Amino acid sequence: MFEKILIANRGEIALRVHRACREMGIKTVAVHSTADADAMDVRLADESVCIGPPSSTESYLNIPSIIAAAEVTNSDAIHPGYGFLSENANFVDIVTAHGIKFIGPTADHIRLMGDKIAAKETMIKLGVPCVPGSEGEITTLADAEQVAADIGYPVIIKASAGGGGRGMKVATGPDTISEAFSSARSEANLAFGNDAVYIEKYLSGPRHIEIQILADGKGNVVHLGERDCSLQRRHQKALEESPSPALSDDARVRIGETVSKAIGDMKYEGVGTIEFLYENDEFYFIEMNTRLQVEHPVTEMVTGIDLVQAQINVAAGLPLTLTQKDITFSGHAIECRITAEDPVTFAASPGPVNEFHVPGGLGVRVDSGLYAGYMVPPYYDSLIAKLIVHADSREECLLRLNRALEEFVVSGIKTTLPLHQELLQNEEFQKGDYNIHWLEKFIENR
Amino acid sequence: MFEKILIANRGEIALRVHRACREMGIKTVAVHSTADADAMDVRLADESVCIGPPSSTESYLNIPSIIAAAEVTNSDAIHPGYGFLSENANFVDIVTAHGIKFIGPTADHIRLMGDKIAAKETMIKLGVPCVPGSEGEITTLADAEQVAADIGYPVIIKASAGGGGRGMKVATGPDTISEAFSSARSEANLAFGNDAVYIEKYLSGPRHIEIQILADGKGNVVHLGERDCSLQRRHQKALEESPSPALSDDARVRIGETVSKAIGDMKYEGVGTIEFLYENDEFYFIEMNTRLQVEHPVTEMVTGIDLVQAQINVAAGLPLTLTQKDITFSGHAIECRITAEDPVTFAASPGPVNEFHVPGGLGVRVDSGLYAGYMVPPYYDSLIAKLIVHADSREECLLRLNRALEEFVVSGIKTTLPLHQELLQNEEFQKGDYNIHWLEKFIENR
Repeated sequence: MFEKILIANRGEIALRVHRACREMGIKTVAVHSTADADAMDVRLADESVCIGPPSSTESYLNIPSIIAAAEVTNSDAIHPGYGFLSENANFVDIVTAHGIKFIGPTADHIRLMGDKIAAKETMIKLGVPCVPGSEGEITTLADAEQVAADIGYPVIIKASAGGGGRGMKVATGPDTISEAFSSARSEANLAFGNDAVYIEKYLSGPRHIEIQILADGKGNVVHLGERDCSLQRRHQKALEESPSPALSDDARVRIGETVSKAIGDMKYEGVGTIEFLYENDEFYFIEMNTRLQVEHPVTEMVTGIDLVQAQINVAAGLPLTLTQKDITFSGHAIECRITAEDPVTFAASPGPVNEFHVPGGLGVRVDSGLYAGYMVPPYYDSLIAKLIVHADSREECLLRLNRALEEFVVSGIKTTLPLHQELLQNEEFQKGDYNIHWLEKFIENR
Repeated sequence: MFEKILIANRGEIALRVHRACREMGIKTVAVHSTADADAMDVRLADESVCIGPPSSTESYLNIPSIIAAAEVTNSDAIHPGYGFLSENANFVDIVTAHGIKFIGPTADHIRLMGDKIAAKETMIKLGVPCVPGSEGEITTLADAEQVAADIGYPVIIKASAGGGGRGMKVATGPDTISEAFSSARSEANLAFGNDAVYIEKYLSGPRHIEIQILADGKGNVVHLGERDCSLQRRHQKALEESPSPALSDDARVRIGETVSKAIGDMKYEGVGTIEFLYENDEFYFIEMNTRLQVEHPVTEMVTGIDLVQAQINVAAGLPLTLTQKDITFSGHAIECRITAEDPVTFAASPGPVNEFHVPGGLGVRVDSGLYAGYMVPPYYDSLIAKLIVHADSREECLLRLNRALEEFVVSGIKTTLPLHQELLQNEEFQKGDYNIHWLEKFIENR
């Protein structure tokens, strides 16, 4: 096992990794920008090294500084957290070349999944379902009709050169394909000077459902169920839950097995997430994240598995002894991402934290680097705390979350706590009746 | 179900009960002395009523004030927490006479178990093992030898009129009984002017092990495993864990079944705890607590059952739908009682709390009514927070507890946090090798 791990990150995730190391008897090294010298993870780490000025590019993305910090502290391994250098294959190569273990997958796997086209091709080959569509351009109505009939209506016709919604037309059935095809082509021509179009299955209101996997690089892999992350604002997840209120047990088993097989075939190492759009009981691969995710705690709460400790164990070369039948799912978990933002305008709200009082009691977990007197710096992501609640059922989980939110006090800065409280009063949300567009509309109409 | 519950208590347990009510959609009424007007439970309750000055006898033990508060707020039920009026049968009678439901067992059951001799007789009748001994006085050496042979050595010979250790002699075997018997008698005569003695099984270093039960008053009962509460200072528990490091699965099943049957036969209602001394794989009944206990969270953590919600459900007349086979035990939980005391001298340390920062992350629970700026009043029990940690195994639980204690910050007052940190470094404690005398010795010798 490693003796000392350098944590190449900041904020709540740096603290999260520190906690896992402490519980494994592994020494920790915190690296920090000058803006983060007083951060909780820095205070608690065994050692800390300042790696640069506030700007991320000069600190948390500064590879030479981080490598130097690892060398000077004699660290055996580097945990990248999420964001920053966590999916930077070049960084992995450099870390490895210095004889330090990168806690995560190989550089090759990161590269492969970082290239979205190659990732999709790989997943198709491995039997993972993707959004079906035409292979390349469609030039005749007859071909369009054929493809649409093959993949099933509704379909969307998109400009090959397109973007921003222009040159995109939906055909709901055989009676509308002709009109949609021709208008997409002419709109594409007008907008881009190129009337080439292609066809894809149209998903009108899908959910974002992702599968957590854990693998040891030796072909052993387990999946840890799904997370429903459909509640997003500007592609930023706001609240995640597991299990998804929309998924049948049957669908869960089906996609879990498909994903596990694909990841095992890849000989992938570490934790990873396979993201899907989900509509009408079908999954469509979007991308794979080759790192720990912000929302990993909901999976930990329903499976009882410490994902960071598991990451460290497989990185240290320990084979995965868990098999799929060891994984049991218990109850329901929801995570609220609390950010330092105005809950109405979403303007960033950095500054000094006056009071910081977290909820406690049964089934309540808080992951946060904040404390009273801390100064939220303006330079980084606005996430300041994750409130994770677990209960026997979704209904009880919502009630517990509601009481936990009532107890949560952060003063001095604005936070999205009131947004989460509002969300919990909404009937559609209470029923689990939402998709990836729902939160934007909720925010618009409140 | 009840619409509104009055919580006749203060501090962390009042907050604990409030949380359960909130999660069940039940309104809460906090009652408080003038010293507790700013307490967390008072702030969070739907309504609050001041019931008197700081002195407990004039507030939290003031039955007319509490009844008046329940009537004026139209409360359906009263939750007594622990301590104060929770085991006062007279209070239960008065509450009931006012048409209000007391959340707990009947006054008769409280009376029965409050009378320690009647409780022991009842338990013997119900098949629960007690400390074996002579029936009444022993006047001849032959009788003493016979009783000792029947119950097995070692035995203790005690002065009937005794107390304070005088007139108490241990006989380790047949060769020492004669000397012990005569010296106990002469010492008893000298000390009390009465040479009557009796004999009991001698337990040299027992553990304190208690069984949590939950029953619906209709004969349905489940036991929720044991808690090991051997770590005590002056009969005050300092740290509790479940499961006990000393108990075999076989012993757990055996005592659980015995206790469940006895409690079912009694038609007991609510939660309760049957306390035992445990030595050489034998259990000896001490007493039954007819209320929720301070250390109930460790049981909640390993069973996943919310004991306060369960209490409220059975008090509302809902039959217990859980059966013993629904109860599963998962992992290990430890609770540290953090008190506002000097960790070396144990002098009380009330006063203003400057910083209050609780640990978070996976497997960590804090039950506390404290917050930064709160003033710990000098009038009540010194318990200010319970830190409860859960993990897969005892070993992992200790590591997690250690890191959680490192993160816990309370300033302005002295607390026993450092004592718990010291305790965790002790090898005997780490091995679970302790009994009811161990903590006193540890404190003396550190």
